[in-house]
Amino acid sequence: MLDVAIIGGGPAALSAALNCRQRNKTVTIFGRSLDSSLLFAAEKVDNYLGLPDMAGEELLNTFYAHAMKNGVEFKEARISQIMSMGDSYMINAENEFIQAKAIILATGLSKSKGIAGEMEYLGKGVSYCATCDGMLYRGKKVVVVAENEEGEAEANFLADICSEVLYVPLYQPVLSLKDNVKVVNGKPKAVLGENDRVTGLELADETLGCDGIFFAKNSMPPESLLFGLETEGKNIVVNRKMETNLPRVYAAGDCTGAPYQIAKAVGEGLVAALSAAAAIDQLDREQQK
Amino acid sequence: MLDVAIIGGGPAALSAALNCRQRNKTVTIFGRSLDSSLLFAAEKVDNYLGLPDMAGEELLNTFYAHAMKNGVEFKEARISQIMSMGDSYMINAENEFIQAKAIILATGLSKSKGIAGEMEYLGKGVSYCATCDGMLYRGKKVVVVAENEEGEAEANFLADICSEVLYVPLYQPVLSLKDNVKVVNGKPKAVLGENDRVTGLELADETLGCDGIFFAKNSMPPESLLFGLETEGKNIVVNRKMETNLPRVYAAGDCTGAPYQIAKAVGEGLVAALSAAAAIDQLDREQQK
Repeated sequence: MLDVAIIGGGPAALSAALNCRQRNKTVTIFGRSLDSSLLFAAEKVDNYLGLPDMAGEELLNTFYAHAMKNGVEFKEARISQIMSMGDSYMINAENEFIQAKAIILATGLSKSKGIAGEMEYLGKGVSYCATCDGMLYRGKKVVVVAENEEGEAEANFLADICSEVLYVPLYQPVLSLKDNVKVVNGKPKAVLGENDRVTGLELADETLGCDGIFFAKNSMPPESLLFGLETEGKNIVVNRKMETNLPRVYAAGDCTGAPYQIAKAVGEGLVAALSAAAAIDQLDREQQK
Repeated sequence: MLDVAIIGGGPAALSAALNCRQRNKTVTIFGRSLDSSLLFAAEKVDNYLGLPDMAGEELLNTFYAHAMKNGVEFKEARISQIMSMGDSYMINAENEFIQAKAIILATGLSKSKGIAGEMEYLGKGVSYCATCDGMLYRGKKVVVVAENEEGEAEANFLADICSEVLYVPLYQPVLSLKDNVKVVNGKPKAVLGENDRVTGLELADETLGCDGIFFAKNSMPPESLLFGLETEGKNIVVNRKMETNLPRVYAAGDCTGAPYQIAKAVGEGLVAALSAAAAIDQLDREQQK
């Protein structure tokens, strides 16, 4: 089992990972490629103390090299869900399941809070993971809303289980769907429901009746990654130890709110790592009793 | 008038100063020499992301150079007091008085909370500044407790005003005291008082009756620098914006609590600077109305 799983890939994630290693913890970063970080595109950065006048890409590569030299593992993977297992967490990394004692969320700026009703019906018909939840919709009608082609695999999997699968692609081109998956073009507006269950998806021009809606997203709002995580607007709520409201779950960097700056992210990554390391040590001591 | 005065001289102070300059604010750091920073003595630091395997001295010099390149002024001076002037603060830097719109405290680890009674009788007979408060003790008996030879100037100044000056040196050698200053050797234990006024200083072996006690210290506990500053144990209380309980007074780095790490200090310095810059902009707008 991993000590610490870090979700991210920018400066907060790399600083957290480096400092987990300094405390002799095993750590894997689950992130997108480095060039997906907002920092990568920055032309010039001159306010990270000690590294004057660097291009964003150069700075990110310097950070990455420092972390790697210390034994950090970086796994390029999209995380669709993190489940609490009591004393540990189970991470779904593109259907590979990894267990970790502690989680550090360094997911950056959350780009979307989803459409109306999406959060409200999460776990009540809304899902982000066909592999996890598909079986709940055996013989039922579902809609897959996909921001990228990974949605196609989800839809094809569901096509073997569900009575009907509608596919709403938000990207082009759609490459390979099974024959019994029906493409519907339109812009999703709202998740509809009744009695605490999803009943349909409202598009700009029509409404699709259904029992479940699967979203395949480029980035996940953190509260949909981890059930029960406290957020305030787009920000994950943390205290000065970078603790969230969930045990052994920490957050660092842009996902905790402004200012969206490297030094803040790097500092918070360090604090989150030291808090995680201390909590793991305490858990280990308790379990040895 | 300065925009921002920073009290400190380590990584938090330098990061705060750099980021004040990035927001186009004038800024002066009032600090001790760089070699007085705890970091200066560190043999090797490898957990500040992007600058692997650096000696503390090298890292501090790198930080210093980066800040200076951006127009930060560094003034080697001991600060004995900061007074609120309503919309600004007045800083006493070895009897030069400087006004600033905002203050960032980056004073590092507070080494002492003082002796028993010291905080309780602050402003009621206890003082850290003979120039400021000496006149209040005209014709009275005072004790000067000095951790360094700067206490000698304080004592000599008081000798012209007070009826009797006792000098308790906590260093060696004592170099030049006026004839009417009497040296008393002993370890201070407690400030004594009655009816909200100082009545004496208790030493290990004797008690010195007096009307006032002046302390000349190597480092000042921050709550004695700035009247009314909220602390918790040795830490200055801050929120996530690095705001203290006083308007336009911020704190960053070790003085806000553990972990005592560079990345945390640098991140907090940045946050304090951006908060200060925003508050100054708002104050300026209000004053233009």
